Amino acid sequence: MTDFTPRPDDHFTFGLWTFGNPGRDPFGEAVRPAPTLDSIERWLGVLAEAGAYGVNLHDNDLVPFGAASAERDRIVARFRRALETSGLRVPMATTNLFSHPVFKDGAFTSADARVRAFALDKCMRGIELGVELGAEVYVFWGGREGAEVNAAKDPRDGIARYRQCIDYLCAFCRDRGYDLRFALEAKPNEPRGDIFLPTTGAMLAFIETLADPAMVGVNPEVAHEQMAGLDTSHAVAQALDAGKLFHIDLNGQKPGRFDQDLRFGSEDIKGAFFLVKLLEDARWQGMRHFDAHAYRTEDERGVRDFAVGCMRTYNILRHKARRFAEDAEIQQLLAELAPAEPALEEAMQAYSSASAERLGAVACALDVDAIGARGLGYERLDQLVMELLMGVR
Amino acid sequence: MTDFTPRPDDHFTFGLWTFGNPGRDPFGEAVRPAPTLDSIERWLGVLAEAGAYGVNLHDNDLVPFGAASAERDRIVARFRRALETSGLRVPMATTNLFSHPVFKDGAFTSADARVRAFALDKCMRGIELGVELGAEVYVFWGGREGAEVNAAKDPRDGIARYRQCIDYLCAFCRDRGYDLRFALEAKPNEPRGDIFLPTTGAMLAFIETLADPAMVGVNPEVAHEQMAGLDTSHAVAQALDAGKLFHIDLNGQKPGRFDQDLRFGSEDIKGAFFLVKLLEDARWQGMRHFDAHAYRTEDERGVRDFAVGCMRTYNILRHKARRFAEDAEIQQLLAELAPAEPALEEAMQAYSSASAERLGAVACALDVDAIGARGLGYERLDQLVMELLMGVR
Amino acid sequence: MTDFTPRPDDHFTFGLWTFGNPGRDPFGEAVRPAPTLDSIERWLGVLAEAGAYGVNLHDNDLVPFGAASAERDRIVARFRRALETSGLRVPMATTNLFSHPVFKDGAFTSADARVRAFALDKCMRGIELGVELGAEVYVFWGGREGAEVNAAKDPRDGIARYRQCIDYLCAFCRDRGYDLRFALEAKPNEPRGDIFLPTTGAMLAFIETLADPAMVGVNPEVAHEQMAGLDTSHAVAQALDAGKLFHIDLNGQKPGRFDQDLRFGSEDIKGAFFLVKLLEDARWQGMRHFDAHAYRTEDERGVRDFAVGCMRTYNILRHKARRFAEDAEIQQLLAELAPAEPALEEAMQAYSSASAERLGAVACALDVDAIGARGLGYERLDQLVMELLMGVR
Amino acid sequence: MTDFTPRPDDHFTFGLWTFGNPGRDPFGEAVRPAPTLDSIERWLGVLAEAGAYGVNLHDNDLVPFGAASAERDRIVARFRRALETSGLRVPMATTNLFSHPVFKDGAFTSADARVRAFALDKCMRGIELGVELGAEVYVFWGGREGAEVNAAKDPRDGIARYRQCIDYLCAFCRDRGYDLRFALEAKPNEPRGDIFLPTTGAMLAFIETLADPAMVGVNPEVAHEQMAGLDTSHAVAQALDAGKLFHIDLNGQKPGRFDQDLRFGSEDIKGAFFLVKLLEDARWQGMRHFDAHAYRTEDERGVRDFAVGCMRTYNILRHKARRFAEDAEIQQLLAELAPAEPALEEAMQAYSSASAERLGAVACALDVDAIGARGLGYERLDQLVMELLMGVR
Repeated sequence: MTDFTPRPDDHFTFGLWTFGNPGRDPFGEAVRPAPTLDSIERWLGVLAEAGAYGVNLHDNDLVPFGAASAERDRIVARFRRALETSGLRVPMATTNLFSHPVFKDGAFTSADARVRAFALDKCMRGIELGVELGAEVYVFWGGREGAEVNAAKDPRDGIARYRQCIDYLCAFCRDRGYDLRFALEAKPNEPRGDIFLPTTGAMLAFIETLADPAMVGVNPEVAHEQMAGLDTSHAVAQALDAGKLFHIDLNGQKPGRFDQDLRFGSEDIKGAFFLVKLLEDARWQGMRHFDAHAYRTEDERGVRDFAVGCMRTYNILRHKARRFAEDAEIQQLLAELAPAEPALEEAMQAYSSASAERLGAVACALDVDAIGARGLGYERLDQLVMELLMGVR
Repeated sequence: MTDFTPRPDDHFTFGLWTFGNPGRDPFGEAVRPAPTLDSIERWLGVLAEAGAYGVNLHDNDLVPFGAASAERDRIVARFRRALETSGLRVPMATTNLFSHPVFKDGAFTSADARVRAFALDKCMRGIELGVELGAEVYVFWGGREGAEVNAAKDPRDGIARYRQCIDYLCAFCRDRGYDLRFALEAKPNEPRGDIFLPTTGAMLAFIETLADPAMVGVNPEVAHEQMAGLDTSHAVAQALDAGKLFHIDLNGQKPGRFDQDLRFGSEDIKGAFFLVKLLEDARWQGMRHFDAHAYRTEDERGVRDFAVGCMRTYNILRHKARRFAEDAEIQQLLAELAPAEPALEEAMQAYSSASAERLGAVACALDVDAIGARGLGYERLDQLVMELLMGVR
Repeated sequence: MTDFTPRPDDHFTFGLWTFGNPGRDPFGEAVRPAPTLDSIERWLGVLAEAGAYGVNLHDNDLVPFGAASAERDRIVARFRRALETSGLRVPMATTNLFSHPVFKDGAFTSADARVRAFALDKCMRGIELGVELGAEVYVFWGGREGAEVNAAKDPRDGIARYRQCIDYLCAFCRDRGYDLRFALEAKPNEPRGDIFLPTTGAMLAFIETLADPAMVGVNPEVAHEQMAGLDTSHAVAQALDAGKLFHIDLNGQKPGRFDQDLRFGSEDIKGAFFLVKLLEDARWQGMRHFDAHAYRTEDERGVRDFAVGCMRTYNILRHKARRFAEDAEIQQLLAELAPAEPALEEAMQAYSSASAERLGAVACALDVDAIGARGLGYERLDQLVMELLMGVR
Repeated sequence: MTDFTPRPDDHFTFGLWTFGNPGRDPFGEAVRPAPTLDSIERWLGVLAEAGAYGVNLHDNDLVPFGAASAERDRIVARFRRALETSGLRVPMATTNLFSHPVFKDGAFTSADARVRAFALDKCMRGIELGVELGAEVYVFWGGREGAEVNAAKDPRDGIARYRQCIDYLCAFCRDRGYDLRFALEAKPNEPRGDIFLPTTGAMLAFIETLADPAMVGVNPEVAHEQMAGLDTSHAVAQALDAGKLFHIDLNGQKPGRFDQDLRFGSEDIKGAFFLVKLLEDARWQGMRHFDAHAYRTEDERGVRDFAVGCMRTYNILRHKARRFAEDAEIQQLLAELAPAEPALEEAMQAYSSASAERLGAVACALDVDAIGARGLGYERLDQLVMELLMGVR
C-alpha cells in the first residue's frame, strides 16, 4: 500500500492556535490547558516529528496582548530557538483583531477612529513580528468587521474604512521594504451576525479597489465557504484564475451551521478531493495550512492524532487525484465531453463581424434537439469517482 | 396617511416572466395559463394603470425559441405598439440560456464548443432585440453555468470560457455601437448543484478579469444572496462602492432553501428596509426591478395584487427610510458612535512613517479596556428601528 | 397610541443567564462583568421595575458548580429575599449539564455511566432548588447530547440512555411529591456537531416513549427551530395540538447559522407575529420567557434596553394580532377560503363504507380544473398582513 | 476484490418516477421522454437484469389522472404481466396529491372540504391499486400540506385536518381487511414555503395522536432531513427506537438547498455509511428504496448507470460496515469509551430513594475534573473510519 506519511516537502503547516486550542466553546469551558511557551515548544517537536513543515501564528498566540517590549523580545527569542531546534518554519503570520473587547464592533471598520488607529498599530507590530520570524504571507481575517445592527453602520462606510486600513498597511510594508504578501480571508458570519465581504469572491473584488492590488490576494477557508453552502473548489479556482491564491485554510465543516473547524477531510470527502485535485493540478506552490482544531473530547494525544489525520488525508486524496488522472475509463469519459471543434473554438477566441457570422451559420445548422438529448455519462463518471474515493476501484 | 401609490417616476419594472409565470414547480403543473401575446398586451395595460414604469424580458419571453425571422419581426412590432399604447418602457433585456435541453450542462461554460457558439449567437440576437426595444442594460444570468459533477469540468475552464463569452459579447456591442451595459447576476445554486461565480462578490471579482471591465457591472438579486444566507444590502453596498450596480432584482426569500422569488418585502422586512434605505441614501438612479412571481394559489387578479404589493412595499419602506433620517433619537445615537477625532482620521488617510508614529503614540496611550467596556446603544437603536418599521413610532 | 408598556400580568420572564450574559463568544472575551449575587439582586429590581413577572435559572447561574451545602443555602436564602423584595417569581428552573468538561461528550447520553450518574444527581439537586424557589416547570436542554463522531455512539443507545434518565427523574419527582412538569428543549446543533432529538417534533415523539409521558412536554425555542430553517409557529402548533406546550423560549435568529439568541422580534417580524398570534389565539397560559441576550456591543444599560425591547415587541405584536382579528377585509378573505360544505365535512368525520361512497360520488362530480384555477387571494391577504405589521393599515 | 453486484435479496427498489423522471426542473424543459407503458415495461426488464427487487409507484405514475375505470384496468393488467415477466415486485405504493392544481393549497390540509374529499377518494383508489399490486406499505408524502402565507391557515387546523384524513384512511383499510401499513414522509419545504410536520421526528409525534397509531410509521428520506441540515441516521435511529421505521427513501443531497434527489451515496459518504451501518446493525427487514433521479445530463443509459450506482454504493458501504465491526483497533477504541460500571448501571435502571442515594454518593466521590480531562480518542477513531471509507485501511 502507498505510503501516506507526511513529510516536510509536503508543506503542511498548522497555526499555534490549532494545536493550542483549549476547546472552549459558547456553552462550555476549556477542556485542555491554555498554551504556554513550554507547551508550544513541546508541540514544535511533536509536529516536526510528525512531518509538518511549519507553524503560523497570530501575534497574541505568542506574545500576550499588551506585553511590554522586553517581554515580547524575550518570548520571540525563545520561540526562534525552538523553531531552529525543531526545523520548522513560520511561513505565515496574522493579527488578532477579534479577542479583546476593544474590537467588539470591528477593528478596521469601527466607527471609532481610536479603535482603527489601535488596530493599525497592532497590525504594524504584528507584521514586524511576522517578518522577523520569516513569514512571507500575512493574513487578515476581519472576524469582527460586520454587524448585527445594520442601522449602526452604512456598509459602504465599512468597506471604505476597510480599504483605507489595508492600503495603509500595504504602504507600510513597501516603506519598510518587506517582501510580504497580504492574504484576505472571508467568512460569512460568526462571530458577527453578518461579516462584510463574506466570501472569497467578495474579497477578490474588494482587492481590485485597493491602491496596490498586486500585493494582496486571498486566503480561502474550506469551512467559511461551506458555512454559506458554497463550493470551496469553485472559489479557489476563481482565486487561482485571478492569480490571487496566496494562502489556503484547509479544514472541514457541515454547511449552514456554526464554525466547526473540523479535521481536514472529515466532512465531505468528495469536496475535499476536488479541492486537493485542483491545488495539485494547478501545481500550486503555497502552504497546505490546516486551520482546524481537535474535538473537545480530546486530550493532547488526541490533538496529535488530529494533526496527523489532516496531513494523512491530504496525502491520501493527492494520491487519489493521481489515480484519477491515470484512470483510462474516467479519462475516456472526459475526452468525449468536448468534441473537437477547432474552427469553432478559434471563431470564439475574439469577436469580429466575420466570426460572428460564422457562429450564426453554425447556430442555424445545429440540431440543438439532438445535442440536448445526448447523454453526457455523468452518472457513470461520478460513480467511478466515488468508487475511486472509496478504494474499490 | 402618506400615499404609497406607485407612480411611473418610481421606476418600478417587472419581467414578462414575472406576471406571465404560470406557476409550474418541480412537483406540480401550471396553475395559470401560459402567456400569449394577447395576455402580454393586456398586462402592459394593467401594469401601466397600476403605476409601473416598464417591463423587461428574456428573448424567449416574447419570441419563441427557434422562431423564424418574419415571425420574430411581426411579434416585436406588435409588442412595440402595445408598449406605446401603455406608455411602458423596456429598460432591460436578457437571454434565456437555460430552458432548452441544449443548455443542460451550461451555455457559456459548456465543454461543447457548439453549445457555446449557439449561446453566443442567441445572445447577439437577444441583444439586437433588447436594443431595438430601447434597453439600456443587458442582464446575464448563467443559471446552467455550474455543476453537480465536479469531475466533469475543471472550474478554471468553466471560468475561462465564461470570460471568453462575455468578452466576445462586449466586443460585439462595441462594434455595433450599442450604448448598452451588461449586468451579471449571481446565484449560488438551483437549477445546478453549484453555480459558478455564486455571489455578487464573485461576479464583481470576475468582471475585473474581463477585457473591458468598464462596460460590465452586476445585477444582485435579493433571493440569490439570501439563499446563501448572505446580507443583500452588504452585497449591494459593495457593488455601489465599486460603481458597478447596473441593475437590481428585488424580491423575497427565506434563507437556505429553494428559490422562492416571493413578493418584495414579504420576507425579512428589516432586510428589505436596509436595502431600500441603501438605494435611496445612495441616490441610485437604476430601475427598481421586481424579479418575483405570485404564489401558485393565485389567479390573474392575484398576480395583479402581487405586483401592486411589491411596489407599495417599496414605497412604504422608502418612506420609513426618510423617517429614519429625520428621527432625532436615532440620529443622536448614531452621532455618538463616532467620537470626533479629526487628527487621527487624517493620520490614517495615508501611510507615512510620521503618521505611523502618531498612531503608535495614540495606541500606547489608549485605555482599550475602557473603550471595550463602553456601551454602544445598539439594542436601543435596533429597537427604535423595529418600532419605526412596525409603525408604532 | 396604544400603550405597550410591559406589566407583570403579561407574564414575561428572563433567565439569570440572559441579563447576566457577559458577552463571551468563540472568538472573543467577555465584554461585561460576570454576574455576582450583587448584580443579580440589582437586576431583579431593574426587571421588576421594567414590568417583568419573573426570572428563571440554571442551578449554576445561582450556585457555583461544586459549592458546599452551606454556601448553597446561604446563596439561596439571599436570592429568595431578593425575589421577595422585587416581587418577581421563579416559574422555571433547569440544570446546567453542558459547561463543565465532564459533560464534554454528553450528560444523559454519555457512554460513561459515571457521567450519567453525576448528571442525574446534579439534576435531582437542581430540581430541589427549583422546587424550593417555586418553579412549576423544569426544563431539560441537552446541549451536549449529540455527536461529531457517529462512530463513537450508536444513536439508538444515545436515545435509550436519554430516556432512562428522564424516566428516572420523573420517578424522583413523583416520589418526592413535587408538582413539577418537565419541558424538553430541542436544538439541532451547537455546541455539538449534531444534537440528538434535534427538533421540537423529535422531542414530542420521544416523550411518547417515556414511562410517564403525561408529566413531560416541550420547551420550543424560536432560534433553535430557525437554525434548522423550520417554521417555529408550526412546531409550537404541533406542541399545542398535543397538549404539550409546557414552556417557550422566545428570541430571534437568522436561519442556517450559529445560535444568535437575539432580542425577540428583531429578526423575522412576520414569523414573530404569527407565533404571538398563535399563543394568543390559543389562550396559552404559560410564561412568555425570553431566552436571549444583549449584543456584545452593550453595557448594562444596553442589557436593560434589550430586556425592555423583548417585552415591548411582544406587546406590539399581540396588539397587531388583535387588529388582525378585527380587520374586516382580512376576515372576509379568510371566510372565502372555506366554502361551507357541512355534509361533506360530516362525511369525512369518520370512515364508513357509506361515507366513502359519498366521497366517491362527490369526487366524480367535482370540476377539479375549476377548483384548481380558482384564485385564493393570498397575495392580497399577505400584503394586508404586511401593511398591518408595518403600521400603515 | 469483494463483489458488490446487486442481487434481488438485497431488496433494492426504485420508484417508477425515479427511472421515469424526464429531467424537467423549475428553469428547464424535459431532457428525456415522458414515461409510457412501453418504457415502463422496458425498464422493469432493465432493473431486474441489474439486480433490483422491485418497483414502487404513485397512482398516476401508472394510471393517468382522471382515467376511466376500463382504461385503468387495462393498464394495470398489462403492468402486472410485465411484473411477472421481470420477476419484480411492488412492495410500496403511494398517491400523487401534489401535481394537479386542485391540490395547490394542500390536499388533506386544504381549507376547502371538496379538495379533502377528492384527496381521500383518490387515496382510497390508490390504496386499492397498491393492494392489487401486492404492496405492503403505503406511503404518504404531503408535499402540498403547508403554507407560504401563514395568515391563511392556522397550523393547528392544518394538523387536525391531516389527522382526520389519516384516521379515515386507516379505518378504510381496516374495513377492507387490507394488510397494509402506512408510512408518513416528512419534508421541511419545497414545493411549499414550509411544509407541516417537517421532520421525521415531527411525523413520529403526529402518529401518536392518531386513532390507530400502530398501523402508521414513517418513511424517512435522506434528502429531506439533509435539507434541514439534520443527521439522517439520528432520525432513522429514533424511528427504529420507536418501532416505526416502515420504509426508507435513500438518496443524496447537499444541505440547505433545493431538493436534489441525487444518487445514493454521491454526497456525504460518511453520512451514507452511518445510515447503512445503522440499518444493517439493526437487521432492519424493510426495502432499500432509492428515491432519486438521474442528472439532467443523462440519457437512458445514464439513468441505468444511476440505478446501478445507487445499489453498488449501498453494497460497498454495507461491506465497510462489516469491516468496521471486525476492525480490532476501532473496536478497542470503542470498548474503552464505556468503563464497566455494572453497579452504577443497575442503580440507574430505575429510580428508588436508595438508588438515588447511591448516585449521590458516587457523584460526591467522583473526580469530575479528571474525567473531564480524559481523552476519548475520537480524532483517532474518526480518522480510522475515514481511512476505512477511503479504502486505505
